[in-house]
Amino acid sequence: MAKRRPALSRQVLWETGHKYFLPHISIDNVIFGFHENELKVLLLQWKESKRWCLPGGFIYRDEHIEEAAVRVLQSRTGLDNVYLQQFYTFGDPHRDRKKHGISKPKDIKKPSWFMDRFVSVGYWALVEFSKAVPKPDEFSEACAWWDIDKVPQLILDHNQILEKALQSLRLNLNDYPVGKDLLSPKFTMPELQRLYETILNKPLDRRNFQKKILALDILDRLEERKTGGAHKAPFLYRFDQRKYERAMKQGLKFGL
Amino acid sequence: MAKRRPALSRQVLWETGHKYFLPHISIDNVIFGFHENELKVLLLQWKESKRWCLPGGFIYRDEHIEEAAVRVLQSRTGLDNVYLQQFYTFGDPHRDRKKHGISKPKDIKKPSWFMDRFVSVGYWALVEFSKAVPKPDEFSEACAWWDIDKVPQLILDHNQILEKALQSLRLNLNDYPVGKDLLSPKFTMPELQRLYETILNKPLDRRNFQKKILALDILDRLEERKTGGAHKAPFLYRFDQRKYERAMKQGLKFGL
Repeated sequence: MAKRRPALSRQVLWETGHKYFLPHISIDNVIFGFHENELKVLLLQWKESKRWCLPGGFIYRDEHIEEAAVRVLQSRTGLDNVYLQQFYTFGDPHRDRKKHGISKPKDIKKPSWFMDRFVSVGYWALVEFSKAVPKPDEFSEACAWWDIDKVPQLILDHNQILEKALQSLRLNLNDYPVGKDLLSPKFTMPELQRLYETILNKPLDRRNFQKKILALDILDRLEERKTGGAHKAPFLYRFDQRKYERAMKQGLKFGL
Repeated sequence: MAKRRPALSRQVLWETGHKYFLPHISIDNVIFGFHENELKVLLLQWKESKRWCLPGGFIYRDEHIEEAAVRVLQSRTGLDNVYLQQFYTFGDPHRDRKKHGISKPKDIKKPSWFMDRFVSVGYWALVEFSKAVPKPDEFSEACAWWDIDKVPQLILDHNQILEKALQSLRLNLNDYPVGKDLLSPKFTMPELQRLYETILNKPLDRRNFQKKILALDILDRLEERKTGGAHKAPFLYRFDQRKYERAMKQGLKFGL
């Protein structure tokens, strides 16, 4: 749980934010969700330019950067206890608004630390889509889920940050059971396979996938079946918390 | 090749370094070498306190953080064209000298940005031991290789940074053929196995190791054998550049 911090107005943030936060360092969160067989990412739309960006924030001078990432995730989704993975720090000297043609809003008179170069620490998170309640921040007028393959041109290098987060997520597929965070507690084998296919952006063989994921011995097959489909109803599965924790300690080796 | 930068004196660095460098951000390099069957790490000894630390540095205001890491690596080892891997960014709010009982040297009169909190971006590098020429920086009186299991208590959180670098190196063993950087161009199978055993800190089965590493199809067995031993001389191997590049494009899957 992140420490409660006083709300700072938009103007204070622009003009004197550097008194509260470390200058030149930001965090950017790539928040993934999964809904109706699509991998989604949570984006914010800026009030001034109407352009979209990743939800991000700054680091209070007495705050751990990880705590800042948790705080941003909480305020944008309302979710607690979500696994966050630091994946890369972006340090191009051209990471500043001026160099990307973004100007200060007219009502901000003083020079602003916002216009300086920022090094940004990237985190990704996997959230259960149905539980997240997207909420804009002080600078944005909208906060919404986008299909991963329909993401527009984002500000600064945010498209590259998103791409790098996806790469990191793919590399982590063998070590981290993403289904546990991204799916509802009960799910079918086709739903789980579709999640992996979406992240890897390639089709997987059905039998081979099922064999490998069951061999990890972290799933329980339930007695219930999914209802509502026209075809024979598929079995429902869920992650077995005890087996799952044991497997995580030993390290998963999925080998897709 | 990093851009040439003017040398700044120790006093300028302490007193007005923040005019040249980004405040609150540093880099730390964990430089690994392998010699006489031991994994080594390059450390610096501070002039004032005689305590040891990782070689690190700051980021010029117009410099990419990666370029800063390359510059530090070059100045400490004399080596060019070394693969550097960013592995983690350390953002504990207690990362400052004051909180770790380190005081300003007496001859530095002004308040110094050095005493502030620093977020540090960690990189690891693998260098060929015999080619590196260790060289102290402005603040240190010695630069030396230490056996990985004999590293003393380092300043700040540098022991944790080293531990995290080792973890990252281990995770990368399946994807990156470390032998190419850490061994001489020609090596024996026992030497290569010993390198992996040292990094993983556990013994590996000889036959299994040889079978798996040869299955990657990136090594050439030479006609020569290693000379000088009392026993039957083992074959020499080398990395095949063409096969190696092809394998790296496809992604190695060693599966140790």
